Amino acid sequence: MSETTRPSGRQPDQLRSVEIQRHFTKHAEGSVLVAFGDTRVLCTASIEDRVPAWLRGKGEGWVTAEYGMLPRSTGSRMAREAARGKQSGRTQEIQRLIGRSLRACVNRQALGERVITLDCDVLQADGGTRTAAITGAYVALVDAVQVLMKREKLKRNPIVGAVAAVSVGIYQGTPVLDLDYAEDSSCDTDMNVVMNDGGGFIEVQGTAEGHAFRRDEMDALLGLAEKGVGELVAAQRAALGQ
Amino acid sequence: MSETTRPSGRQPDQLRSVEIQRHFTKHAEGSVLVAFGDTRVLCTASIEDRVPAWLRGKGEGWVTAEYGMLPRSTGSRMAREAARGKQSGRTQEIQRLIGRSLRACVNRQALGERVITLDCDVLQADGGTRTAAITGAYVALVDAVQVLMKREKLKRNPIVGAVAAVSVGIYQGTPVLDLDYAEDSSCDTDMNVVMNDGGGFIEVQGTAEGHAFRRDEMDALLGLAEKGVGELVAAQRAALGQ
Amino acid sequence: MSETTRPSGRQPDQLRSVEIQRHFTKHAEGSVLVAFGDTRVLCTASIEDRVPAWLRGKGEGWVTAEYGMLPRSTGSRMAREAARGKQSGRTQEIQRLIGRSLRACVNRQALGERVITLDCDVLQADGGTRTAAITGAYVALVDAVQVLMKREKLKRNPIVGAVAAVSVGIYQGTPVLDLDYAEDSSCDTDMNVVMNDGGGFIEVQGTAEGHAFRRDEMDALLGLAEKGVGELVAAQRAALGQ
Amino acid sequence: MSETTRPSGRQPDQLRSVEIQRHFTKHAEGSVLVAFGDTRVLCTASIEDRVPAWLRGKGEGWVTAEYGMLPRSTGSRMAREAARGKQSGRTQEIQRLIGRSLRACVNRQALGERVITLDCDVLQADGGTRTAAITGAYVALVDAVQVLMKREKLKRNPIVGAVAAVSVGIYQGTPVLDLDYAEDSSCDTDMNVVMNDGGGFIEVQGTAEGHAFRRDEMDALLGLAEKGVGELVAAQRAALGQ
Amino acid sequence: MSETTRPSGRQPDQLRSVEIQRHFTKHAEGSVLVAFGDTRVLCTASIEDRVPAWLRGKGEGWVTAEYGMLPRSTGSRMAREAARGKQSGRTQEIQRLIGRSLRACVNRQALGERVITLDCDVLQADGGTRTAAITGAYVALVDAVQVLMKREKLKRNPIVGAVAAVSVGIYQGTPVLDLDYAEDSSCDTDMNVVMNDGGGFIEVQGTAEGHAFRRDEMDALLGLAEKGVGELVAAQRAALGQ
Amino acid sequence: MSETTRPSGRQPDQLRSVEIQRHFTKHAEGSVLVAFGDTRVLCTASIEDRVPAWLRGKGEGWVTAEYGMLPRSTGSRMAREAARGKQSGRTQEIQRLIGRSLRACVNRQALGERVITLDCDVLQADGGTRTAAITGAYVALVDAVQVLMKREKLKRNPIVGAVAAVSVGIYQGTPVLDLDYAEDSSCDTDMNVVMNDGGGFIEVQGTAEGHAFRRDEMDALLGLAEKGVGELVAAQRAALGQ
Repeated sequence: MSETTRPSGRQPDQLRSVEIQRHFTKHAEGSVLVAFGDTRVLCTASIEDRVPAWLRGKGEGWVTAEYGMLPRSTGSRMAREAARGKQSGRTQEIQRLIGRSLRACVNRQALGERVITLDCDVLQADGGTRTAAITGAYVALVDAVQVLMKREKLKRNPIVGAVAAVSVGIYQGTPVLDLDYAEDSSCDTDMNVVMNDGGGFIEVQGTAEGHAFRRDEMDALLGLAEKGVGELVAAQRAALGQ
Repeated sequence: MSETTRPSGRQPDQLRSVEIQRHFTKHAEGSVLVAFGDTRVLCTASIEDRVPAWLRGKGEGWVTAEYGMLPRSTGSRMAREAARGKQSGRTQEIQRLIGRSLRACVNRQALGERVITLDCDVLQADGGTRTAAITGAYVALVDAVQVLMKREKLKRNPIVGAVAAVSVGIYQGTPVLDLDYAEDSSCDTDMNVVMNDGGGFIEVQGTAEGHAFRRDEMDALLGLAEKGVGELVAAQRAALGQ
Repeated sequence: MSETTRPSGRQPDQLRSVEIQRHFTKHAEGSVLVAFGDTRVLCTASIEDRVPAWLRGKGEGWVTAEYGMLPRSTGSRMAREAARGKQSGRTQEIQRLIGRSLRACVNRQALGERVITLDCDVLQADGGTRTAAITGAYVALVDAVQVLMKREKLKRNPIVGAVAAVSVGIYQGTPVLDLDYAEDSSCDTDMNVVMNDGGGFIEVQGTAEGHAFRRDEMDALLGLAEKGVGELVAAQRAALGQ
Repeated sequence: MSETTRPSGRQPDQLRSVEIQRHFTKHAEGSVLVAFGDTRVLCTASIEDRVPAWLRGKGEGWVTAEYGMLPRSTGSRMAREAARGKQSGRTQEIQRLIGRSLRACVNRQALGERVITLDCDVLQADGGTRTAAITGAYVALVDAVQVLMKREKLKRNPIVGAVAAVSVGIYQGTPVLDLDYAEDSSCDTDMNVVMNDGGGFIEVQGTAEGHAFRRDEMDALLGLAEKGVGELVAAQRAALGQ
Repeated sequence: MSETTRPSGRQPDQLRSVEIQRHFTKHAEGSVLVAFGDTRVLCTASIEDRVPAWLRGKGEGWVTAEYGMLPRSTGSRMAREAARGKQSGRTQEIQRLIGRSLRACVNRQALGERVITLDCDVLQADGGTRTAAITGAYVALVDAVQVLMKREKLKRNPIVGAVAAVSVGIYQGTPVLDLDYAEDSSCDTDMNVVMNDGGGFIEVQGTAEGHAFRRDEMDALLGLAEKGVGELVAAQRAALGQ
Repeated sequence: MSETTRPSGRQPDQLRSVEIQRHFTKHAEGSVLVAFGDTRVLCTASIEDRVPAWLRGKGEGWVTAEYGMLPRSTGSRMAREAARGKQSGRTQEIQRLIGRSLRACVNRQALGERVITLDCDVLQADGGTRTAAITGAYVALVDAVQVLMKREKLKRNPIVGAVAAVSVGIYQGTPVLDLDYAEDSSCDTDMNVVMNDGGGFIEVQGTAEGHAFRRDEMDALLGLAEKGVGELVAAQRAALGQ
């Protein structure tokens, strides 16, 4: 495992530098620019005093997410989804993942009948946009909930623990943490892992791009993910001044 | 953990009865009706002598999948996606999963410049439609490839191993195999596992619906999946007369 | 008229073998697999306790139909309408025809404020899918109404008579009954006739594909249709145990 | 049959006044404003030197039709189909009917590799828009073909006979010819009949709105249609100066 | 500047002949066929007793516009927007312009909670369709309001002044009024000017197609527009018998 | 004119602070974050070696623009256009304006057969997003052309002069320069002016929201626009180091 050189020169178990900048834009109740290396995602949390039709009158709230990539966030320009008239399957898959992940840390009864929408827009992509989005959206969500707390709209804090995400994969035979684009586009196996701050798994999505992965490889990958999420949760706490 | 009674009375590690009926319809090169208990999915494999634009001239083929549910395959009628004018995010996620899973057992160079489309249409749903679809689509794919072999269109068999899939989850605290609808709609954790006949993992997609799952729970679930896929591969072989 | 040999060897006034299998799937209130020879259509009837906006408060119900073909129900694969994002003109024309035809045997006041949706999905096509769909949907409709009767939701039976449909056409100069695909794709004139069990015409849709048809040809075709529908109504009754 | 008074005071077998105004607009190769009483439809024929992909290289042409209603051609404003983003099932059904009907009088080999598109736009509706459209579109088609003949693009005239259409129905128990809106909206049976100038039937589309119609009623309706189409063909000839 | 000959032989400051024909169709509350030379637009005004959701309960009405071109209103056939499934950017831009322009002469409180929709459909295009549409729609709007006044639905007349529009441009170096298609397709600068009968500007939309225009050119264009709108307002008054 | 106090405290002829940050993201050939006060727009220029079908083989290039607003760039969250499945009329109007404006400073023959797409995405909106977008897109365009020059793909510089844009309007009776949201949402007249560095007008789009504007008001507004664009062109030059 030791000889492989990652394109970035990182150690196999090393995250890229993580930056979490709060209050990046002024209108949203939560607005966070998160960077995992060169991947930069703007995550905003917007509060609305309504619930979807199917939740009306149940005394519960909802947390949902939308995801987009600016057309030139990538190496070659992608068609704008608004112009094509529909969101790709990949986009829908990612925004469903972000929504599920963040709902895992929210007590929806405590939130009351309101919706918080997490918009995750990729300004610059270099691998790992969905894991950066989840990690940043959590901070935006906490900020938005703080706005509600300050306005005395909530009796108790609906946030239950913290959520962060990281990708792991097997690059040239070696399990590595937090793949960048150079690794992601040539690796054999790619897994996105969403966890909470208690070490519990919220989502595990692993795909063998090349050869199928063995049980021992999976164990190694999960171990790397646990380490990475631990560091990301610490970065979230630092950003939030907790 | 041991006392839980599954709604169906099955043992925790027991699959539903599996039926794989080949040649269910006459036009498709492969046509399989697969049943996992009351879940019934019609899987057809269609060969076309063309490739997508981005593969032209590369000497490789492609395998892709589409998924649909008949409007009244479910307990209450769902809107027809063709009438609504778009496929849901769930549908797209599932058909992308089926396509990736089946490509994992195909040598695309050996297939040559043609597309095989796997249409998986749910006639009756009772949980586990995507895992039944993958398991049945494999058999349809083998039948379609046999048609090509008989027509002497291929120099060698492009099928590499077998692929099958099963769901596992934690129902009332107990890890169980092959969830039906009654279990699926009330379980805490739900994982779909796609494996090959060599015991390698192709896809792992686990979601904590309620509480996050621990590492030891994950180990138990993966063990159940290995057992279930083994039995499904045997059923595929039996159906194919191998 | 006597010399023509039909591709199937049938007599000019001979239907294909008709099979009507009730309770084919378990969720729908009515679920019928109808076969006209190799043409197989799954017809489900679904009851919903709502009416369209324009019928609200009028004390009447509604009966509507949707139609679809599985992508590989045909000789070469057709694009999935849900993926293309819209239903073809042909699909819409057929589902409007099915809906009008079935409404002709329903007393909508007696049905009360509810909708019955008839989903007709073609599993295998060999000509005459729309006439098979109408014939099978009638049986599914009767089964669904029986469910309402058993639940004591209706004061009186809203079904008024029976409805069945058959195609007729001129194949190589000879008027023939119940065209299969081989005939349909090469005949000069094609007419779909929907009738009730009292010998009344509900819909007549005739199209001259090649030369225009004469009045005497029309007379012969209508005579064949009357014979065919009579036999189909008998098959419906037998299936329903009436 | 004799006592019924039609809302318009017409005899049962009397057409509305028919006007066919050629060269109504200047750009189209054929441009006809046709009036059946208060129903007014602008029919243009446009020639393009291309064929659909599926006809390329076969040496044949194509004739197709599109149909639309101006939003306020009707008593209450209808939503604009371009704004709603799709054509209704009714629109598609009608434009398919117009296209099939006009193709019945065209020798597509003689037309050569070009498309003639018949756009039928309803300026004012008072029943019978589709039959007026077919009758007017024929004249526009002849004018467009004349343009090609004058430009010496054709070796022989591809127009084979004439085509016209009329509606018939049973109004308060009496078979009547050429229904206006007042009759159409309250009649029991409505049939659109497309015929050629040789008395042959091209399309017959009859629908029982109320009670099913008997065979003898159908005979009476077809007789009225034959009379009406005869008069319409004469009006077409007069307009064309033949 | 003086020597330029316009393709039509008109003087630089000369409008095309203007015709405003009221009551062109019978259903709409206002129905005007307006001609600016060969440009002919049918403008209907439709009253509905509803307001958009965002205006409900405010005691105000709304005036909106839709615009369309018949497919063969132009020299070569354009695709039908209803068939393509969406309105072009140009169409939306024009209908937004027409709506804003007409709202400028309506007191929406005096109109009360109702919508007037102005449908402007181009039957024949020869440049200046949007300015003809605005000019004709005003007359249709006045007619529709008169219908409301006669029905005693309004306490006071909501029409405040008159609105008309004309295009101006620089053709071969000379500022000219009311461009026809021959001029429009080859001119350097094109400006649409909407004014009221008090000489106030409601909209000015100028675009330099070739070289940017100078301030003194703009002055000349605005002067031409003032002259043209004055004449158009006089034509509106004459048509309305004011 | 002197007494009005602008919400921001600015003088009537005072721009907001302008910032032009180049190389904001790494993938695009030109990437500029432009700020007009709190309005922030990311403008990227992407080069592609293709032309639209209608330009093929003409030896010319094309410059086009797309515009979008992040859902929470505004005070209350807007629906994401990609999720709604279409771009609004406003979006299309703006992106057409940006495209036309930038094409006015490009020699398309000199550009050769390639497309430059200017994506203007609003990160934070506070009025004037379209004028900021045009001003920033010009700088991104120059950067992208410099990349082509460095790669020796161009014989001569296709950029002809500079283009910038500013809004002007009448706020509480006073003509003011560069409206922010507080002014924009309550002003009577709003005009967007696009000019080149030679003082020529490229686009003038003025709308009277309240009362129609007089000729002398228009003169004052154009004067303010000339001053503002002059300062913006200077800021562009400074940013480009010219």
